[in-house]
Amino acid sequence: MINSREEVTRMIQATRIRKDIRWSQVAAALGLSKEWTTAACLGQMAMSKQQAMVVAEIFDLPEDAIAWLQAVPYKGSLPTAVPTDPLIYRWYEVVNVYGSTIKELINEEFGDGIMSAIDFSLDIEREADPKGDRVRVVLSGKFLPYKEY
Amino acid sequence: MINSREEVTRMIQATRIRKDIRWSQVAAALGLSKEWTTAACLGQMAMSKQQAMVVAEIFDLPEDAIAWLQAVPYKGSLPTAVPTDPLIYRWYEVVNVYGSTIKELINEEFGDGIMSAIDFSLDIEREADPKGDRVRVVLSGKFLPYKEY
Amino acid sequence: MINSREEVTRMIQATRIRKDIRWSQVAAALGLSKEWTTAACLGQMAMSKQQAMVVAEIFDLPEDAIAWLQAVPYKGSLPTAVPTDPLIYRWYEVVNVYGSTIKELINEEFGDGIMSAIDFSLDIEREADPKGDRVRVVLSGKFLPYKEY
Amino acid sequence: MINSREEVTRMIQATRIRKDIRWSQVAAALGLSKEWTTAACLGQMAMSKQQAMVVAEIFDLPEDAIAWLQAVPYKGSLPTAVPTDPLIYRWYEVVNVYGSTIKELINEEFGDGIMSAIDFSLDIEREADPKGDRVRVVLSGKFLPYKEY
Amino acid sequence: MINSREEVTRMIQATRIRKDIRWSQVAAALGLSKEWTTAACLGQMAMSKQQAMVVAEIFDLPEDAIAWLQAVPYKGSLPTAVPTDPLIYRWYEVVNVYGSTIKELINEEFGDGIMSAIDFSLDIEREADPKGDRVRVVLSGKFLPYKEY
Amino acid sequence: MINSREEVTRMIQATRIRKDIRWSQVAAALGLSKEWTTAACLGQMAMSKQQAMVVAEIFDLPEDAIAWLQAVPYKGSLPTAVPTDPLIYRWYEVVNVYGSTIKELINEEFGDGIMSAIDFSLDIEREADPKGDRVRVVLSGKFLPYKEY
Amino acid sequence: MINSREEVTRMIQATRIRKDIRWSQVAAALGLSKEWTTAACLGQMAMSKQQAMVVAEIFDLPEDAIAWLQAVPYKGSLPTAVPTDPLIYRWYEVVNVYGSTIKELINEEFGDGIMSAIDFSLDIEREADPKGDRVRVVLSGKFLPYKEY
Amino acid sequence: MINSREEVTRMIQATRIRKDIRWSQVAAALGLSKEWTTAACLGQMAMSKQQAMVVAEIFDLPEDAIAWLQAVPYKGSLPTAVPTDPLIYRWYEVVNVYGSTIKELINEEFGDGIMSAIDFSLDIEREADPKGDRVRVVLSGKFLPYKEY
Amino acid sequence: MINSREEVTRMIQATRIRKDIRWSQVAAALGLSKEWTTAACLGQMAMSKQQAMVVAEIFDLPEDAIAWLQAVPYKGSLPTAVPTDPLIYRWYEVVNVYGSTIKELINEEFGDGIMSAIDFSLDIEREADPKGDRVRVVLSGKFLPYKEY
Amino acid sequence: MINSREEVTRMIQATRIRKDIRWSQVAAALGLSKEWTTAACLGQMAMSKQQAMVVAEIFDLPEDAIAWLQAVPYKGSLPTAVPTDPLIYRWYEVVNVYGSTIKELINEEFGDGIMSAIDFSLDIEREADPKGDRVRVVLSGKFLPYKEY
Repeated sequence: MINSREEVTRMIQATRIRKDIRWSQVAAALGLSKEWTTAACLGQMAMSKQQAMVVAEIFDLPEDAIAWLQAVPYKGSLPTAVPTDPLIYRWYEVVNVYGSTIKELINEEFGDGIMSAIDFSLDIEREADPKGDRVRVVLSGKFLPYKEY
Repeated sequence: MINSREEVTRMIQATRIRKDIRWSQVAAALGLSKEWTTAACLGQMAMSKQQAMVVAEIFDLPEDAIAWLQAVPYKGSLPTAVPTDPLIYRWYEVVNVYGSTIKELINEEFGDGIMSAIDFSLDIEREADPKGDRVRVVLSGKFLPYKEY
Repeated sequence: MINSREEVTRMIQATRIRKDIRWSQVAAALGLSKEWTTAACLGQMAMSKQQAMVVAEIFDLPEDAIAWLQAVPYKGSLPTAVPTDPLIYRWYEVVNVYGSTIKELINEEFGDGIMSAIDFSLDIEREADPKGDRVRVVLSGKFLPYKEY
Repeated sequence: MINSREEVTRMIQATRIRKDIRWSQVAAALGLSKEWTTAACLGQMAMSKQQAMVVAEIFDLPEDAIAWLQAVPYKGSLPTAVPTDPLIYRWYEVVNVYGSTIKELINEEFGDGIMSAIDFSLDIEREADPKGDRVRVVLSGKFLPYKEY
Repeated sequence: MINSREEVTRMIQATRIRKDIRWSQVAAALGLSKEWTTAACLGQMAMSKQQAMVVAEIFDLPEDAIAWLQAVPYKGSLPTAVPTDPLIYRWYEVVNVYGSTIKELINEEFGDGIMSAIDFSLDIEREADPKGDRVRVVLSGKFLPYKEY
Repeated sequence: MINSREEVTRMIQATRIRKDIRWSQVAAALGLSKEWTTAACLGQMAMSKQQAMVVAEIFDLPEDAIAWLQAVPYKGSLPTAVPTDPLIYRWYEVVNVYGSTIKELINEEFGDGIMSAIDFSLDIEREADPKGDRVRVVLSGKFLPYKEY
Repeated sequence: MINSREEVTRMIQATRIRKDIRWSQVAAALGLSKEWTTAACLGQMAMSKQQAMVVAEIFDLPEDAIAWLQAVPYKGSLPTAVPTDPLIYRWYEVVNVYGSTIKELINEEFGDGIMSAIDFSLDIEREADPKGDRVRVVLSGKFLPYKEY
Repeated sequence: MINSREEVTRMIQATRIRKDIRWSQVAAALGLSKEWTTAACLGQMAMSKQQAMVVAEIFDLPEDAIAWLQAVPYKGSLPTAVPTDPLIYRWYEVVNVYGSTIKELINEEFGDGIMSAIDFSLDIEREADPKGDRVRVVLSGKFLPYKEY
Repeated sequence: MINSREEVTRMIQATRIRKDIRWSQVAAALGLSKEWTTAACLGQMAMSKQQAMVVAEIFDLPEDAIAWLQAVPYKGSLPTAVPTDPLIYRWYEVVNVYGSTIKELINEEFGDGIMSAIDFSLDIEREADPKGDRVRVVLSGKFLPYKEY
Repeated sequence: MINSREEVTRMIQATRIRKDIRWSQVAAALGLSKEWTTAACLGQMAMSKQQAMVVAEIFDLPEDAIAWLQAVPYKGSLPTAVPTDPLIYRWYEVVNVYGSTIKELINEEFGDGIMSAIDFSLDIEREADPKGDRVRVVLSGKFLPYKEY
């Protein structure tokens, strides 16, 4: 019996590595973006029954896993508060170095409020560049204003 | 005598609030993006002498501040490892929830390496949307591969 | 010259204590709830110019403070990640003990998503009870669903 | 042999996911609120023998589990001091942003003391709203005054 | 102008040291226990106006301090989560080594619930002993049971 | 083969829960206080061979456990530096809120030194009270003075 | 089935210890530096298929491991933020004591920017010295300047 | 009166920025390496009287500072355990990613022991490279073996 | 007016540096060991009135300081839980590496209990050695056994 | 197959407890001090092949363990940064309370440098005392001076 969503995530990763499956293939099978698909497979999003069945098929998951993939997971994908992996740390560094800048500019443009991390999408793509290709990431989040009451 | 870059940052913020200066005005005066300009004014980037003089003029800074603005600062703009401000926390949350996804997708596309946070730019803008305007942020960083040796 | 919003908060607190001003009086003067008013005076919300002028009047604040009260503050009102004050700790304890319950029930009712802490209101009142009066707190936050993309 | 209450909690969760049981059904079977029921099933409350037997039946728990459900558990349902799950974090954020406000207003109304987290109840419900349904949460805790001695 | 209760505490401590005032004298002047009195003077309890005036007299406090002593303080008297002072650490050690024991025995005797730290009193006294005098401390707190709802 | 004292503690707890053994029964069998007995069974004290045999009998422990119960354990019974369980947290809160008071009063009475947590005893009992029974705890520790040398 | 790269690393270490394999032998078999080779075997670098097959042969790894060695690992080789092992701590100490010096001198020579930890190589060798041999370590990293935009 | 070495460090930095002094000039004046000189000026090393007088002259330090520069400082030049500045973080990252590698290779070559951080020198220089100049850093530390006794 | 013992410590350190006073001279003036004397001057021990007067004389302390030196201080002389200064860190390392050894051997010799850090003395001296002088430190603490009750 | 040195340490501890082996017996069999011997058995030192074989014999270790005992271990014997065990905590307390004293006195006697924790020995013995036996510990470490370069 599967006891946690983390077990399902480990099964998915182990199969992905063994069978060399690409996230973009999984995304295509689901008809969704590779960003949402990957996050969902890594235990950060809840799937519909149909999505869970597709994913279970691709990754040879046991029957039980289909129910776990539909349950809302306890989110958080990193093992430490300050990430140790260099790729992920660079993102944390951006938040640390540019955090006050991001706050100032969003507040200057929109007033007091936040950029939603829920009504949110992420898009990662390659940007060809003669001086070395770049990673281009677009984050789009609804602005949510604080209100008086 | 000014003893640290933080003092200069506090002077800039106090004047900006008092005189209601917009970061985009400062950026226009420097002929640079509002993102770099704000980061530099908030003590995260080193300015050229000319830039420092423009900024000193705008914010009524004392003579000493011009030298400090040219010195390379000790970077890091947030008071705690996990940010408490909701706007900035949402970014930390994105790193936490989507961190493993970002890593998987960049590694899938580019192989082992990172997205540079140095050869990097940030662009924040309003995206009109009938269901509520969105904050659209574009991050662009050069991909830097790990190499064997 | 005032250098930070925290200075304004300290001034407000010192005057409030000295002159024994009640938050509900301030709220009445602003025509808003005592919850929003107190949060704003304690440096967690940005005020409009008119609100800032009313508050400055009540608390004998210097001219400069009016601009600071309108600036969007860096939020976070507690000195430590785990609060030491018993009253506030009880709330942290509720999050700790009931956190998984709250998540399960909101997710059971609404699906995957969050209860907004931005489009949010708080209402604190006395509930008379023969066995000892109770504090009754109503939190109301818009449900924000995660979406596929 | 079952070695800890956490094992029982994991069994309950695994069965709940597999058999798609709703907390409100469990609450109905116990004749208690869904809030207390969920907290108890998630290892935060001690049950009576009869309650434990009902729960064991619903979740196919082994004999041993009935004794564990009656033992007073070591409480605390979150894996980190600052929660990483966005839904639960929003609650932590409310404590962080509104903590000083909550303290001021309860103390203004009642004097020095706390709102009990023991003689306490929680009620979570959907509040229909044309602009998007809201989560409405009512917390009710007995006020406990500090006394001189 | 006094800006925080901590300032008042520092004034009290400085005068106490300089004038060699004993806490038991202050307690006698207030007609209360030395435990409550000391805690109140060290910024952990709110005083009545009359008490504050007595204390202000004893410690030569300025006018402003009388209002601060009546305000409910942000409690917490130690600079670090794990105390460094050996005397106070020993108490933390007792909580660490005997914590599970205390929980088991209180729960065995009373069922699920807590010993109140609010409806609580503390009594510290010397216990003569031929093998070396002992510190005898009596803690008395109301038992508060968790209830179903 | 048993690999750690923690394993023995888990076996004791599992049997205690399953067979509904009371700590006071174990204490009676050992002829010692329930406080020392519970602490010893929970892995905080070393037992004599005879005590270990009595305990092994009561809790159906394997042969190996008898040696482990006699070994001096690595003490510390709580999983986090700041305890999450509400009952134990209240004790931590007492140390936090009253810590400076306890230090002042012991030092005022005895001079510089500590209250021993080794030459120490703990006594927990029910105190009947018409307004609700109270938990009465007596701590007694030898005073140990710092000396010059 | 192998579930994580850490498992592969543990297998490699266990075989290396049992068969007394030297890292320099592995490096020679791969035709690469001992520094990169060791880091890769310890789970910090991704290998090519051919490299993975050589390593699998040397360390008797199961079939599955070959795929895991080619996957980009989650990097970070130390169990705590401040390392406890004395050899590794000395390096942390160098960063702590000389960190501000390193920053000043690199910034003085190159301007604002960093020394890459990605386009980076490490070389560790013995330096004979009559007063006791020395460890000589050469770090070489590309300088990456911050740019305006 | 100067109260700490940190004050002297701040004075040195403020003058260095204001007068645009280069560390290599200071090193030349002392006849020592720029690495040791910078570390000493930044409060990490004790100077001789003569060195202190040279430094005081260069940086216009008051009389008192000369004594402080000769006192052995409390070392540690970074404000947080995990550095936030990107340049210094890259060094921490090297320790994190390559830490186990460094340990393996030094132990393989020398046996159990450490590379001294005391009998240690550091040399930072520019390495011209057509693909972009590199920072080349040489660390040299005496190997100190653990011994039996 | 002096507000804390830390201020007195800073005054002592500043004068000691300025006038180049040696701790052994202070110890000789007090007729006590240099270890106790230094600890007392650095704010870790309470002095008698006469001792305080001698110390005040040596370090030109103001009148107020004499009372502060007699008050029992809040002990703890290091700014961080894990010390950053290499000399002090080596001691922390000894506790970390040899901690379990120290515990095993004291427990093997004495049974369950501790080595007192209160009824304790410290003696630091130079041990001439042809291979380089050594620091020889003798710690002597009374053994305090845990007792049954 | 043994996967880590910690496994070997656990086997040694389990056998030591079961067979009631004394560390001094092991030390005698090795012809070394009980301090080094215990540290080595607890996974803090690397053994020679011959030593490993003696230890394996005494503790009935499997073949594999002999190789692991010769490998240089990742050192650090305590589970938390601030130790919870009272005996080991007292040592941490000594570092905390006397840390600045130890630093001052070693630096006063020897100049800037450290006491080695590598070229180091530890000796723990019983010191008979009519007022209660004492633990006498001698630490001896080579003084290592910082040098200019």
